[in-house]
Amino acid sequence: MVQLEKDGVARRIIAAIKEQIHSGAFQAGDRLPSTRAFAAEWGASRTTVTAAYSQLVAEGYLTIRPGARATVAPGLGTVPVPMPCRGAAPRHLSAFAQRLLALPSPAEAPAARVADFRYGELSGADFPVLAWRRALNKAVLRRTARLRYGDPQGVATLRAALQSYLWRARGIACTADQIVIVNGSQQGLDLCARLLLDPGDPFVIENPGYHLARQAFAAVGGLAVPVPVDADGLRTDALPLARLAYVTPSHQFPLGGVLSARRRRALLAWAAHTGAYIIEDDYDGEYRHDIAPIPPLQTFDPEAVIYAGTVSKTLSPTLRLGYLVVPARLTPVFAEAKRLTDRHTPLAEQDALAELLASGAYERHVRSIRRKNAERRAVLLQALAEDLGPAVTIAGAGTGLHFVAWINGVAAEREPAVIEAARAVGVGLYPVSPLYDPTEPRPAMAGFILGYAGLDADALRRGVAALASVLAEHS
Amino acid sequence: MVQLEKDGVARRIIAAIKEQIHSGAFQAGDRLPSTRAFAAEWGASRTTVTAAYSQLVAEGYLTIRPGARATVAPGLGTVPVPMPCRGAAPRHLSAFAQRLLALPSPAEAPAARVADFRYGELSGADFPVLAWRRALNKAVLRRTARLRYGDPQGVATLRAALQSYLWRARGIACTADQIVIVNGSQQGLDLCARLLLDPGDPFVIENPGYHLARQAFAAVGGLAVPVPVDADGLRTDALPLARLAYVTPSHQFPLGGVLSARRRRALLAWAAHTGAYIIEDDYDGEYRHDIAPIPPLQTFDPEAVIYAGTVSKTLSPTLRLGYLVVPARLTPVFAEAKRLTDRHTPLAEQDALAELLASGAYERHVRSIRRKNAERRAVLLQALAEDLGPAVTIAGAGTGLHFVAWINGVAAEREPAVIEAARAVGVGLYPVSPLYDPTEPRPAMAGFILGYAGLDADALRRGVAALASVLAEHS
Repeated sequence: MVQLEKDGVARRIIAAIKEQIHSGAFQAGDRLPSTRAFAAEWGASRTTVTAAYSQLVAEGYLTIRPGARATVAPGLGTVPVPMPCRGAAPRHLSAFAQRLLALPSPAEAPAARVADFRYGELSGADFPVLAWRRALNKAVLRRTARLRYGDPQGVATLRAALQSYLWRARGIACTADQIVIVNGSQQGLDLCARLLLDPGDPFVIENPGYHLARQAFAAVGGLAVPVPVDADGLRTDALPLARLAYVTPSHQFPLGGVLSARRRRALLAWAAHTGAYIIEDDYDGEYRHDIAPIPPLQTFDPEAVIYAGTVSKTLSPTLRLGYLVVPARLTPVFAEAKRLTDRHTPLAEQDALAELLASGAYERHVRSIRRKNAERRAVLLQALAEDLGPAVTIAGAGTGLHFVAWINGVAAEREPAVIEAARAVGVGLYPVSPLYDPTEPRPAMAGFILGYAGLDADALRRGVAALASVLAEHS
Repeated sequence: MVQLEKDGVARRIIAAIKEQIHSGAFQAGDRLPSTRAFAAEWGASRTTVTAAYSQLVAEGYLTIRPGARATVAPGLGTVPVPMPCRGAAPRHLSAFAQRLLALPSPAEAPAARVADFRYGELSGADFPVLAWRRALNKAVLRRTARLRYGDPQGVATLRAALQSYLWRARGIACTADQIVIVNGSQQGLDLCARLLLDPGDPFVIENPGYHLARQAFAAVGGLAVPVPVDADGLRTDALPLARLAYVTPSHQFPLGGVLSARRRRALLAWAAHTGAYIIEDDYDGEYRHDIAPIPPLQTFDPEAVIYAGTVSKTLSPTLRLGYLVVPARLTPVFAEAKRLTDRHTPLAEQDALAELLASGAYERHVRSIRRKNAERRAVLLQALAEDLGPAVTIAGAGTGLHFVAWINGVAAEREPAVIEAARAVGVGLYPVSPLYDPTEPRPAMAGFILGYAGLDADALRRGVAALASVLAEHS
């Protein structure tokens, strides 16, 4: 009777009978016409009517006994159909939902046409399309026997490959069991927030700092304790009591400082003393333009530090692939949280990344994209020096895929006007000021985060030239 | 100086100097040897020593002024290196984490060799490898201009294609804006749990019911109110006050009842009256073997019902692709929660599914896999009738990819012994009993969930034959 789906006549019969029952024309216990009579009345086949009656029995509208005529099931007319009250306030939402609704809504402007300096985007031309497609195809073809849910922590081959990569590239000595594959580092931060913070628990956040980390911790009810940063990263001279500290020691986001050795030790001592966890977001650890990458905090105290890594800055943010290295004793609870959150990260991406890591293609790609981004950085720095000279002060250009340009002589209040004027000439600018804690003082000078990984040399030069013309009118 | 990475000598110099500082041999303010002296002492080039010193300056171990010798930075010797206290209790974990740790740990036995009846797995042979690979390759090749984060709710083309599919296949009239793409329905349930429940809030759950739904709601602190089910699905005669009800109306999991029309109306009236949300998990709505699919609850009250769908039962559970249809007024908060949870679902899978839906390949595939699973079901039912006859009572076989076999004359206490004996002959059996609420009475009879979508006809027949021999010894 699966044909019923395609049988328009049966569908119409079903709808008509339901309508009669809902309107009260057919009452509970009423006998329906025989299938023969109904078929004659509708000019339909008896098979069709029988199928329609069977459907209505299955849906509970009719009851039927062998040899007897179908009757209307009891209780259908008595319950009023609920009236959806459109436009009214939502029903009960959780405290988490209320906190989300109170967040500032993200500004999602379309990409500017000449040069969009939005941070976090990469050039599609840099993506290793062929290698990735090959690895992905291999993954799709491999999984042939039985399709089943995977390990919540991630595919074993990927975790083994990452363990080895993290040792080679970042000096991290961990077991594959300490690695949890997540859907981008944002999911890693959200898992940390849920597992380590209760409503009212204070957390240390860099000021200015990464707003999506701050929001993830604040959304679960954590209380942000902003701690200022300077050229040496987070200031550790007055760390408050807190459940956790979120830090970007390799390249402070957004200002670009590298956490000094002294502060590293002070931060670790604070964590050891207070029992706080440190969440180390190594979001662009692969990009060090001046010196060798600095060893992560994780290498000094693997029991206190949760290390978050990602391929969003080396392959693509659209893959949603990241990883946590968690203290050994926390792996069970992270695995369980991942399982209840979404079972596991999609297997094809995991398999493909494992393949790229195992074959060495990933590290070759990282070297290549590191070189390309170093070139972009040089082009951008040169263009800024030539076109703007002393009008801008650059901060944090030693590493990563962005730096901050402070605009000398332009007050912070002028930022919106500059952004609007820049957009009018096709340049997308993103201010530093929203990354400051709303309760703390903001800088007096206008400053912008210039992300360059998504732009080619020509766009970078044209973008700076356009920006220079805008600033000439605004200073 | 990026060569430093490859320069073993520089690495050793850096490590040696750090060691001297940490041990106190070099104190704050001490001057280091000149690069020339150091190079001579180590038999290294001056370039190498200069690179090592620069690295140590960047890491904050040394300070340097032009023309002067490098000195040890202050504050490094005074802070003790934290001693990780291995083996001790974890530091503070949230109430959410505590609840997760109290959950029963999932039993993850390897697949049984003759026939594993684990529910939720599909046969790899049914996966449309070529169509999926083609769609995936197209998606990988398409995204060439700029790699940027996607819409938290999901790719617009996928949501448009799903809107149209849901109308054709399930009679759901929604806008594309009401659709939220999630990483499998589990993430959809987790989002519902976080957004709709506060700790202490009661939620209605079917008893027996889907344990991962129960766990997702309980993990956020919700209080489970188990409501019994019978052959007509959830019993609605005594629904308690609750924030939400989780139901599987098209095919109750695991017992297989279809929620009757009368109960549908009663449930909707309860939701309208109490302001509760209904979460309708239509996990296998595509598989209706006897009658046409029954219209979802969502179609009757789109303001009260959150509809959850998935491709885990039609394509593969490994893709982690699902979708929610949420009341229009809830879309902003769901989108924001998805953004903070993991930004968005990976784009390649979304694009590939959109392609399959738009080309009609998805619906062709669903028809094909529906036919194959109907055949599997028929084979399994026939084998059970032939080999076990009256020894088993089948429940819920009218729809879906599983049914329940109650073993007449075998008491529930014997389940573990039967499972063990079955595994010894290569048959994987999964009991119904753990899906009952732990505080409520469990059935007296042994019962097993037989998932058949991952097995071919031969495995099904051999599995039943082996099961028959096991049961002959246990009854």
